[in-house]
Amino acid sequence: MSKKVVVVGAVAAGPKAACRLKRLRPDWEITMVDQDSLISYGGCGIPYYVSGDVPDESELRETSFHVVRDADFFENSKGVHVLTRTRALAIDRSAKTVTVRNLDTGDEEQLPYDYLMLATGARPFDLPIPGAKLDGVFAIADLHKAIEIKQRIAQGKVSRAVVIGGGAIGIEMAEALTDLWGVETALLELAPQLLPKLVDRHFAEMLKNYLVEQNVTVFTSESAVELLDDGHGSVCGVKTGKRTLEADLVIMAVGVRPRSELARDAGLDVAPWGGIRVNQRLQTSDPFIYAAGDCVAVNNLITGRETFAPMGSLANREGRVVGDNMAGYPSVFKGVCGSFIMKAFERCIGSTGLTYEAAVAEGFAADYALTAPPDRAHFFPGQAVVILQLVFDRRSRRVLGLQAFGMMNDSISARVDAAAALISQGGTIEDFGLVEMAYAPPFSSAIDSINATAYMAENMCENRLHRVDHDRFLAWLEDEGLEPDWVVLDVRHPLEAAPCIEKFGAHRWRGLEYGEIRRRYKELVSDKTYIIFCNAGTRSYEVQIFLDHIGSFKTMVLCGGTNLISRLKPDWMGE
Amino acid sequence: MSKKVVVVGAVAAGPKAACRLKRLRPDWEITMVDQDSLISYGGCGIPYYVSGDVPDESELRETSFHVVRDADFFENSKGVHVLTRTRALAIDRSAKTVTVRNLDTGDEEQLPYDYLMLATGARPFDLPIPGAKLDGVFAIADLHKAIEIKQRIAQGKVSRAVVIGGGAIGIEMAEALTDLWGVETALLELAPQLLPKLVDRHFAEMLKNYLVEQNVTVFTSESAVELLDDGHGSVCGVKTGKRTLEADLVIMAVGVRPRSELARDAGLDVAPWGGIRVNQRLQTSDPFIYAAGDCVAVNNLITGRETFAPMGSLANREGRVVGDNMAGYPSVFKGVCGSFIMKAFERCIGSTGLTYEAAVAEGFAADYALTAPPDRAHFFPGQAVVILQLVFDRRSRRVLGLQAFGMMNDSISARVDAAAALISQGGTIEDFGLVEMAYAPPFSSAIDSINATAYMAENMCENRLHRVDHDRFLAWLEDEGLEPDWVVLDVRHPLEAAPCIEKFGAHRWRGLEYGEIRRRYKELVSDKTYIIFCNAGTRSYEVQIFLDHIGSFKTMVLCGGTNLISRLKPDWMGE
Repeated sequence: MSKKVVVVGAVAAGPKAACRLKRLRPDWEITMVDQDSLISYGGCGIPYYVSGDVPDESELRETSFHVVRDADFFENSKGVHVLTRTRALAIDRSAKTVTVRNLDTGDEEQLPYDYLMLATGARPFDLPIPGAKLDGVFAIADLHKAIEIKQRIAQGKVSRAVVIGGGAIGIEMAEALTDLWGVETALLELAPQLLPKLVDRHFAEMLKNYLVEQNVTVFTSESAVELLDDGHGSVCGVKTGKRTLEADLVIMAVGVRPRSELARDAGLDVAPWGGIRVNQRLQTSDPFIYAAGDCVAVNNLITGRETFAPMGSLANREGRVVGDNMAGYPSVFKGVCGSFIMKAFERCIGSTGLTYEAAVAEGFAADYALTAPPDRAHFFPGQAVVILQLVFDRRSRRVLGLQAFGMMNDSISARVDAAAALISQGGTIEDFGLVEMAYAPPFSSAIDSINATAYMAENMCENRLHRVDHDRFLAWLEDEGLEPDWVVLDVRHPLEAAPCIEKFGAHRWRGLEYGEIRRRYKELVSDKTYIIFCNAGTRSYEVQIFLDHIGSFKTMVLCGGTNLISRLKPDWMGE
Repeated sequence: MSKKVVVVGAVAAGPKAACRLKRLRPDWEITMVDQDSLISYGGCGIPYYVSGDVPDESELRETSFHVVRDADFFENSKGVHVLTRTRALAIDRSAKTVTVRNLDTGDEEQLPYDYLMLATGARPFDLPIPGAKLDGVFAIADLHKAIEIKQRIAQGKVSRAVVIGGGAIGIEMAEALTDLWGVETALLELAPQLLPKLVDRHFAEMLKNYLVEQNVTVFTSESAVELLDDGHGSVCGVKTGKRTLEADLVIMAVGVRPRSELARDAGLDVAPWGGIRVNQRLQTSDPFIYAAGDCVAVNNLITGRETFAPMGSLANREGRVVGDNMAGYPSVFKGVCGSFIMKAFERCIGSTGLTYEAAVAEGFAADYALTAPPDRAHFFPGQAVVILQLVFDRRSRRVLGLQAFGMMNDSISARVDAAAALISQGGTIEDFGLVEMAYAPPFSSAIDSINATAYMAENMCENRLHRVDHDRFLAWLEDEGLEPDWVVLDVRHPLEAAPCIEKFGAHRWRGLEYGEIRRRYKELVSDKTYIIFCNAGTRSYEVQIFLDHIGSFKTMVLCGGTNLISRLKPDWMGE
């Protein structure tokens, strides 16, 4: 028997659900409404459209076979009826109708439904500061705004920009402005680090240092307090607590909030932070109303808590589940790990699962193993170091998360994806040690970086590896008085160690090459704590094991070695 | 209490076990013997050394910190004693001794052990044909042979080469010879396809066509029957059953066999095909003797059968497990999926798990979903098609394997690795549909190719998608008489369909664009079987669903569409 379905929102989750459902139930009448005129676009592509990598906005609305996904497309190709420029105003749950208004004519009508889907998405958070409405101030809200930003830049109207918000979109926009348009760009982030909650502080710090090298000015722990008027209603600067930055373009990318008023007004269960609550079949508290995409609260697979995960990729997966369930094929969306990846100029940063900080806050017996392996066989041309971190629970040995920072290629994708696959199945350190990453020298090492990092985690659980916190180490480099009993034991080649010995002094920096330790360890004095130091941490661990066995030395390993330190403090050797 | 350990074989599994054990039990005396002078090398890097990508062979023997791993290195840095040029002759299990002979002096001695490890590796299979011992005929047996091959080429002594064996090493060697040295190279494979057992026939065929475009001559179902003497003891040609190929260099890469005579002579349990049998802790039938690497039989995680998996990556993982168990830390090696990846010029081919053919032979209710998605967001510059196939069991919905063929980058690595992670955990089609691949346009699509392929598999299980076998379709293109009732329904843009209609005739090739189907389907006659055809198969599936709903049409989808057909038959349009 044919049923009527109304879908509110036509960007990602909505169209996916509508089209899937129409394939499963070709008889059903499906109507999708959206307040915008442009629908079904790849919002994540906006920074690449602004940069010019994607020349035309219509490409973000096209199928892979180059047909624009507009209302006609859905009507003719998918059999789904679409009302654009149409806002859903209210739901009458007992009558099972949605009141919608045509934004051009003002006409209102009642759409009856058997099933309703809310795919209302999220809206950019507007900073409540003076000047937020000035000309030249944009949120990355939709394609219209993106088109306007690009026009301004292309017309040569932008020479200095400030991006407020150091999340993924803010960083991508900063890259787009700097790299392809040569706009002098400053990036402001209120939190003490870029990519808050997505990566741990040290990963954010490596990225920040790199962005600075690429001529992006970055201010963390700093927020905009006022946007300045040039006297003609256009923005001319950004006042922060600490300085004033000139700007003829300001982009606000301070995050998004679920658009859930329609749900709340209809009496559906909505989390205090705004996410519409759904069960695993993505039904709201009214079983005839489903919700998916950026407007819902989803289950975090690691913590079991409800979480906000506004991602186009998840919206699509969720949309399909809604289509299945409405059609009567039970299907579940179990939850999210929180996989994340981004390009930043010629670097890539990615993560999945919990950060170390989040894992500690959640009450896990959290720790992390940090390594600096090559991203493919170390003898293969073009190989480069990646900084890789596995977050795990020492008690259960469950892996909780993975983070990586390295060159812009797909090698981090491979590690993040494999990790997400295992974490979603409750994978342990042992599973990560055994996972069979495909091996050939152009792609990986015989012992894949993910295996090696798991080995390290295991050695930490067994108390074979004792590490020093890199923050404490960096502070000590600045001020030796902090830890008067520390001495670095640099096991690198003497030519690599020499500049450090010269800079920090022989009383603080001792060189004894890795291959010499077994013969010459007696030269070491035993009343100091040796911070063992090499390029990546691997040799340091071996030396620690050996000195522990000798039994008369206190040792700690600086995991990540120079590869980590030089990325955290590019000027640590005074360059 | 200190124990004595002897390790036979010092390439991959042996050194890994020895060094791991020494770290866990620093007191123990560990002696590693190897009949070669060169040890601990990355054998998988040999083709890249021959090609010149890796300039010096010593790089294959170096650590990531550029120290050569020779006997001194193991002695000084690892605390492991190494005897090179030393062959293990016999094991006395009751006396717990190994007899070894120094190949330079001829001296023999007995090495006592508490634990013994066999890491004797594999030897290249020598084709038993006339001429196999001629000068200029090489197996890729070890670094010495590789050095000799490269010297010959570099000295300009090689203008025509024949590589016998179309497995990964054979193909990599053919690339090395052709691409970097301009040697005219022919590749011979006895089986009807390249990469037998690693990928299904159609994947091998796409690779073969590509290799031919790169000027490698490829003969499948053809084997060498004689190597020809130039009259001076050097090879000058290869006689096959069908032709004679000129050659001044012949490389035999026809696979390897476990080197297990030592184990068999000692009365250990050895599989009829030569693999030393071990339990999950990698103990042989004598609990004091462990074995790992290319000489053992391992468990296939999907079939539960014992299998041969000679890979440096597995050898290293296994070696670590041996070290753990000898040290008294119980540790298991559960088995292998069979992950595989390789570079071939500017293409990449990879797989994990079972091929479709193998899955059928194992008695699974096997089927496969084949798609042709872009390798990242379809609007992102540089995106390219990848051909992706998921092999699954229709009854249990368990995923059995994945194969991919696409451009040379790490994107296939990411899909193969994530698939291997899930398959090793018993992942189902549903798990593949939900796996949270990290999304950003430079790396992936909002619906990742792996998710999309799983969706397709699900649609096949539910009998929503009926596909036509591409082999049958290709045969029919050649001879329409084979299936007189077939008509192609080409739903691509009319400009794309037109050349096919012209070539094959309007009676065989009907164009009706995807977006027109719902309006014009009544123009279709219903007594034909429509083979629905597009670029990738996605639109075809949607059209099938619609026509099935109408109810008066017989339809089949050509999965992979033109993307598949043009790679299987580059000249199908007569180019």
